[in-house]
Amino acid sequence: MPPRRYAFGRADEATHPDSMRATLAEFVATFIFVFAGEGSVLALGKIYKDSGTSAAELIAIALAHAFSLFSAVSTSINVSGGHVNPAVTFGALIGGRLSVVRALYYWVAQLLGAIVASLLLRLVTNGMRTVGFSMASGVGEWHGLILEIVMTFGLVYTVYATAIDPKRGSLGTMAPLAIGLIVGANILVGGPFDGASMNPARAFGPALVGWRWRNHWIYWVGPFIGGGLAALIYEYMVIPTETPHHTHQPLAPEDY
Amino acid sequence: MPPRRYAFGRADEATHPDSMRATLAEFVATFIFVFAGEGSVLALGKIYKDSGTSAAELIAIALAHAFSLFSAVSTSINVSGGHVNPAVTFGALIGGRLSVVRALYYWVAQLLGAIVASLLLRLVTNGMRTVGFSMASGVGEWHGLILEIVMTFGLVYTVYATAIDPKRGSLGTMAPLAIGLIVGANILVGGPFDGASMNPARAFGPALVGWRWRNHWIYWVGPFIGGGLAALIYEYMVIPTETPHHTHQPLAPEDY
Amino acid sequence: MPPRRYAFGRADEATHPDSMRATLAEFVATFIFVFAGEGSVLALGKIYKDSGTSAAELIAIALAHAFSLFSAVSTSINVSGGHVNPAVTFGALIGGRLSVVRALYYWVAQLLGAIVASLLLRLVTNGMRTVGFSMASGVGEWHGLILEIVMTFGLVYTVYATAIDPKRGSLGTMAPLAIGLIVGANILVGGPFDGASMNPARAFGPALVGWRWRNHWIYWVGPFIGGGLAALIYEYMVIPTETPHHTHQPLAPEDY
Amino acid sequence: MPPRRYAFGRADEATHPDSMRATLAEFVATFIFVFAGEGSVLALGKIYKDSGTSAAELIAIALAHAFSLFSAVSTSINVSGGHVNPAVTFGALIGGRLSVVRALYYWVAQLLGAIVASLLLRLVTNGMRTVGFSMASGVGEWHGLILEIVMTFGLVYTVYATAIDPKRGSLGTMAPLAIGLIVGANILVGGPFDGASMNPARAFGPALVGWRWRNHWIYWVGPFIGGGLAALIYEYMVIPTETPHHTHQPLAPEDY
Repeated sequence: MPPRRYAFGRADEATHPDSMRATLAEFVATFIFVFAGEGSVLALGKIYKDSGTSAAELIAIALAHAFSLFSAVSTSINVSGGHVNPAVTFGALIGGRLSVVRALYYWVAQLLGAIVASLLLRLVTNGMRTVGFSMASGVGEWHGLILEIVMTFGLVYTVYATAIDPKRGSLGTMAPLAIGLIVGANILVGGPFDGASMNPARAFGPALVGWRWRNHWIYWVGPFIGGGLAALIYEYMVIPTETPHHTHQPLAPEDY
Repeated sequence: MPPRRYAFGRADEATHPDSMRATLAEFVATFIFVFAGEGSVLALGKIYKDSGTSAAELIAIALAHAFSLFSAVSTSINVSGGHVNPAVTFGALIGGRLSVVRALYYWVAQLLGAIVASLLLRLVTNGMRTVGFSMASGVGEWHGLILEIVMTFGLVYTVYATAIDPKRGSLGTMAPLAIGLIVGANILVGGPFDGASMNPARAFGPALVGWRWRNHWIYWVGPFIGGGLAALIYEYMVIPTETPHHTHQPLAPEDY
Repeated sequence: MPPRRYAFGRADEATHPDSMRATLAEFVATFIFVFAGEGSVLALGKIYKDSGTSAAELIAIALAHAFSLFSAVSTSINVSGGHVNPAVTFGALIGGRLSVVRALYYWVAQLLGAIVASLLLRLVTNGMRTVGFSMASGVGEWHGLILEIVMTFGLVYTVYATAIDPKRGSLGTMAPLAIGLIVGANILVGGPFDGASMNPARAFGPALVGWRWRNHWIYWVGPFIGGGLAALIYEYMVIPTETPHHTHQPLAPEDY
Repeated sequence: MPPRRYAFGRADEATHPDSMRATLAEFVATFIFVFAGEGSVLALGKIYKDSGTSAAELIAIALAHAFSLFSAVSTSINVSGGHVNPAVTFGALIGGRLSVVRALYYWVAQLLGAIVASLLLRLVTNGMRTVGFSMASGVGEWHGLILEIVMTFGLVYTVYATAIDPKRGSLGTMAPLAIGLIVGANILVGGPFDGASMNPARAFGPALVGWRWRNHWIYWVGPFIGGGLAALIYEYMVIPTETPHHTHQPLAPEDY
């Protein structure tokens, strides 16, 4: 239900306390997620000096992202819809579930949260340079772009089905976990190729603080294309527009 | 409840919008699952050149399957029943929870989703040959067949108990996670022996795109036998046919 | 609620269809759990020839137990209460939540499920000898006994709080996961010392099929003492006997 | 709802059975958590003789904490609010969700639970010295302090959003998991730097039994600052004080 209440822009949206609270919730949630996600990469850099990646390191990074995104979405889903990702906000905007004003607020909050997290990581690690994302050797830019499109498609499709679909029912309780774990799964796929961002804020904060801009456009264009595509497909092809034959209330006794 | 509404075939089932949406949901969900599952195997091939498997690699593959199947089932459970697996569809068919027409739609959608995922994996990895499943050295075909039967039995029994049983109550909220994690657990068992597929679509897409057909029949026959067996046992021996003495509604105050 | 309906023995309990279904559910659930748990140990033996244990192997074993126990409890919690463990059944018996007749049925079903799982593992692995549990070198029997008591205390206390307590409310939805994951956590502690069984059926099946009885008594006495202790503390000290001041219904609007 | 019922101190709070039960629940839950958390560190010490940390060891420790904290919070959330952490109790106190008397009871119970867990670990490991937390080489005290502040901020903010916020609705079902997994994620970040405690009881018990007090103040001051900050921000900036426009009841049919 949360995304529905701001399905259209209100006249006072920019200054309404609800907007302020939602924006704050996005800021904090993205901060928590980027601190853990980028932090796990730096933590492994603290243990190991070499630059190679092992399966265990890949798992550690995937779990840090999956677990922290689950918690971050949990903290914000009732207040802001739990986007924590500019590509998710873009998908919700494309699907008409969010006003342009609120989308702008969310984007600024998400980027600021990622920047503050990256700055604090630099501070507590005594100056380690944040890493962000780049293509592995032998991976072309177009390969990385398609990979980001496909992975973000899966993520935003999951967001739509579990957190936005008005007929999701009690499945909404599991939405934050489904969102966190599909990111974890996709990192286990895309990590060795392009780092597996699926989230422009997650890429931007560390890129700015670590000043690493190589291939950076991929981590904006890919997630926005994939997220927009998922929103269009789910909004216009999966969500039914007709009156349902019966309710989907999972606990209604007459369904048994 | 979702499986119940198509417990009998409707005259207009093949063209009804509900059938189309359910088929689309199965296609996308299987795509998400196979992309992450097979993709995690290719990702480890990107890191390591040797063919041996370590415990950490086994965990990475198990988690990629478990997490992505959980999310994929979550995206589709309210629309299609969340099968994402031809053996699950076969079990639901055996148990009378699905019409033959709809089962055919689902199977085509699941196989197509797996093929598209495998093709995209080949594209983004710059041509890596998809791996699919085969017997490890020293494992006979009959061993692999029984292993697939037993593991798929556990999977489809879990699907029946948590997602199909009309008396499952609030347990249904956890169905996608229980389904995803039993697959993860079984991969930690069967992975080193026969790869642990439990899902003909998961085996077929990569086999077709990578053109590897050795032992392929096992990954169809095993899951169908195991899934059918689980459906028969749960449908006819565990689901009560008599009037229950009291409701199982977990939140009904009078139960306390 | 499930445990409540058999809080007292019925005259026809031994032959009532409900008892038969519950017993079957315990058999299948324990079969699924032991197949994955013991199977993960054999699977690592297939990969590695040496007998040492690495952190990654410990994680693989812990996750296989945690994930499969979660799914196994999910399949049976609405039918039998989801014990899947003779020590849990003993705790429920001590707390007066189960009749003696039904406890006997459960114990036989749990042991049979573990034996069948162990036999099938021996078959599909082409004759690998099931491992079960034993003390690591340098660990005394009394250390192992106390460890099993403490770990099973934590497990059965979790079962009581999340699956038996009549006031658990919507927390019951998460009971199978809490039960599975506390076992996973405890294996990460006790694994290198005594294997971390917490479950006599999990120990007995592989011991019988692999014919390894060294220290076996510890894996019966420890869990029964720990499980009984947890039941007594939770049943008589944590569950309130007075009328509560207000309901704990998590979704009641008047609570807000 | 649990935190709400003791939002103000009652005259008979110190001797009321509810207080006693809640205090006992905090004692047992903290015992379960510290036994698994500190125990996983000792278990890896049993396997490996060297003092280095690998990615797999970091994952094992993170999962042991995450899984056991999830279960420990599950066992106590309906009885005591599921704090299991003096910094969480401090945050609830700062936010006015707990009386001072009850906070004192909780703190004593949490510290005692941690001490008993540490003593039992020393016993079952045949005298291994509990490890607790300290700064890694090259990490300054101020770095560690800020790290504990930031990580505990994320933890207590998650507790507030999922377990205390009166408008959390069905999200409360997932609170224990969100709390457990954010701790797991943060350990994957902070582990290699300062051990990642976020919990004075988790630090104190092993410090006392292993008699290691170096840098110990950090593990009290950091979590209390971070927890207090999260409580202030969530309580006064995120929780709305105005009348909501509509209810957030996730299962209310009129919301669809």
